[in-house]
Amino acid sequence: MDRQNTRVLKGDICCSADKNKLAAVRDGYLVCEDGLCVGVFPSLPERYGGLELEDYSGSLIVPGLVDLHIHAPQYAFRGFQMDLELLDWLNSSAFPEEARYADAEYAERAYSIFVRDLRNSPNTRACIFSTLHVPATKILMNLLEDSGLETMVGKVNMDRNCPDYLCEASAGASAEATAAWLEESLGSYAHVRPILTPRFIPACSDGLMELLSQIQKKWRLPMQSHLSENPGEIAWVRELAPQSRFYGDAYDRFGLFGGDVPTIMAHCVHCPPEEIDLIEKRGVYIAHCPQSNTNLMSGAAPVRAFLDRGMRVGLGSDIAGGASLSIFRAMADAIQVSKLRSCLAPDGLRPITMEEAFFMGTRGGGAFFGKVGSFEPGFEADAIVLDESRIPSPRELTVKERLERFIYLSGDDWVLHKYVSGRRLF
Amino acid sequence: MDRQNTRVLKGDICCSADKNKLAAVRDGYLVCEDGLCVGVFPSLPERYGGLELEDYSGSLIVPGLVDLHIHAPQYAFRGFQMDLELLDWLNSSAFPEEARYADAEYAERAYSIFVRDLRNSPNTRACIFSTLHVPATKILMNLLEDSGLETMVGKVNMDRNCPDYLCEASAGASAEATAAWLEESLGSYAHVRPILTPRFIPACSDGLMELLSQIQKKWRLPMQSHLSENPGEIAWVRELAPQSRFYGDAYDRFGLFGGDVPTIMAHCVHCPPEEIDLIEKRGVYIAHCPQSNTNLMSGAAPVRAFLDRGMRVGLGSDIAGGASLSIFRAMADAIQVSKLRSCLAPDGLRPITMEEAFFMGTRGGGAFFGKVGSFEPGFEADAIVLDESRIPSPRELTVKERLERFIYLSGDDWVLHKYVSGRRLF
Repeated sequence: MDRQNTRVLKGDICCSADKNKLAAVRDGYLVCEDGLCVGVFPSLPERYGGLELEDYSGSLIVPGLVDLHIHAPQYAFRGFQMDLELLDWLNSSAFPEEARYADAEYAERAYSIFVRDLRNSPNTRACIFSTLHVPATKILMNLLEDSGLETMVGKVNMDRNCPDYLCEASAGASAEATAAWLEESLGSYAHVRPILTPRFIPACSDGLMELLSQIQKKWRLPMQSHLSENPGEIAWVRELAPQSRFYGDAYDRFGLFGGDVPTIMAHCVHCPPEEIDLIEKRGVYIAHCPQSNTNLMSGAAPVRAFLDRGMRVGLGSDIAGGASLSIFRAMADAIQVSKLRSCLAPDGLRPITMEEAFFMGTRGGGAFFGKVGSFEPGFEADAIVLDESRIPSPRELTVKERLERFIYLSGDDWVLHKYVSGRRLF
Repeated sequence: MDRQNTRVLKGDICCSADKNKLAAVRDGYLVCEDGLCVGVFPSLPERYGGLELEDYSGSLIVPGLVDLHIHAPQYAFRGFQMDLELLDWLNSSAFPEEARYADAEYAERAYSIFVRDLRNSPNTRACIFSTLHVPATKILMNLLEDSGLETMVGKVNMDRNCPDYLCEASAGASAEATAAWLEESLGSYAHVRPILTPRFIPACSDGLMELLSQIQKKWRLPMQSHLSENPGEIAWVRELAPQSRFYGDAYDRFGLFGGDVPTIMAHCVHCPPEEIDLIEKRGVYIAHCPQSNTNLMSGAAPVRAFLDRGMRVGLGSDIAGGASLSIFRAMADAIQVSKLRSCLAPDGLRPITMEEAFFMGTRGGGAFFGKVGSFEPGFEADAIVLDESRIPSPRELTVKERLERFIYLSGDDWVLHKYVSGRRLF
């Protein structure tokens, strides 16, 4: 044991044992060595006796939350222009805002707000879309690196069906810009990794997908994109890729749908059965984004079915389709949307429980980053100490009651302390 | 003009012009005399020239929000024990908590938290259920009076189908306790009014309803209760009141369904057409509680239909079926639930717009209190100055964008200053 690199946190410690069960130790000790969890103990093992405690007695300590899908440039307009559906919203809200990031000064100003808020949030890890602009993407990566969070960031590729002011000139130009960005950024950051980010099939020509597939192979990149979010979008993909059996197949034809490529597909609201089978077969991660799917009237994904099949599912804020940064809010939204789905369009899928929502927001999404989202031995020591001071109770509550209440009521910045891989951010 | 009783507030002033339209004046002046609005002016009329400005330049000023349906004793367990449906949830969560209010010391402690949070919230008016306990109800009324908010509070009547530990001994005992409570509280408060509060048909015997009808007539009380929330509840009412044509008729038989009795019915999720007709005919106020209806899997009320018929609709937090106190959150929930309803169970009802949600949370519910919820001349001067400091923007936003963003993102206590009928609370 290297005493320099060992931490002991004391408090009311809770994480997912599995997707149906919490593991909670009141007044317990979380021990971490070299950035990894050693375990949670009801009393401190003797060999850690001499170490200084980080004493958060009375506070809840849970794993840092993981956001599998967020658009950083859209943070500036989260929460307004919400009375539109996906494709209209892209054209009238998202694309005009993203175009502003051609201006490095604007990017610096806007991304500084985003990164500060993300740092103060309960989320310790995130998979992030920037825009197509390489300089702005680097500004974002620099700010994220300084924040100490663990993130993956993608310069967006888009070469068709976009407004002139936000469209790369050709497949070749998009691929070249991506290669240049990768050359500069791979290995330059301790905490930020590039991730391949074709926007979605409607915005990426076959030629571009082919080039991105080569780039993926050369640099062995993970990938993130969108899948089967909205009926209009799906019909459009059918027109654009008539040779594909379904939307996901349009990625798969280029070898960009999981398998050897660690891949996140956001939404998966309206997947046909063959698509769900392929997602499962290829081990694709589903980023479930309940608030965004509600705001943009995309629908309610059959998350219960994904979970019951043991598929890989995490949560996404999908800013600015979703308005809320905290993945605690995404947990509450996931439960609520699943309940309305169950009432309004009953098909036998039971609602998501609080335990399952918490699992998705920690271990479910965390797995994309490795051993992340739990305090079990060997997991990265991502931990947050929660600020419950604004929700006092007239009587004593159990750890589970406090956690559930926090899921429903906490704000984006109700975090007292934050650790990522054993590093204390604040 | 009495200069002592005249106020001039400066800021970015916004209220509902009608249910489809905002009225906004950037850098405007809201003038109030004797607790009533005189108007909103783009520049200050000369006759108010010498008065001291309350200068909130750069801040949004909107009418105080109105909560038409909240259970004060349930505030203590908002946000947990949410994985249950209405009738199970009542028995395992709501009733055991309400029973604690037999203890005045507990009531004082719990209601102090509730009233402090309500005072700090964007809500200026509320229609509140307490419990069946008269002493605890008076504790709540005293705390509310001191808060300066304008509220109506109901001692709850319930004499059947409740657990022994939370059930009045007989119809007569319930009515007597109510009469005693009214004798003591009517006229004793400047800002708190008693409101007749039969819990709901399943918990009130015919004998009790008959006595409450007499009490209503004697003291000319307004009334609040629950209606057509959950299919299981509705089926139960059908069994309990077989002579009634529908749930609402079971109130109407006793003259307790609007008309001369200003009445709020919470929920109205599953009303048959005849019930909707009677609600409209009798001018009953509907308290739409979207978050509660989601959490308890009650469903999604057809609010679009109510609004399009010009019926009286306001919003309710329905703590603790709903977890969130702020009626801004209820506005966002109303929009989101209406969108999911529209995707998942399409019947031609378009989603609620941001303007309509804001209308319901201000003027819609405000009308139950008189001329409340607008800055038009003659309306009560209820105003809140919003704290947008936690959601900075990298670019300038319109007043509408700022208000919409606030609806989606604000916390329960993001209020800088609050006025009720021209009185400044903070």
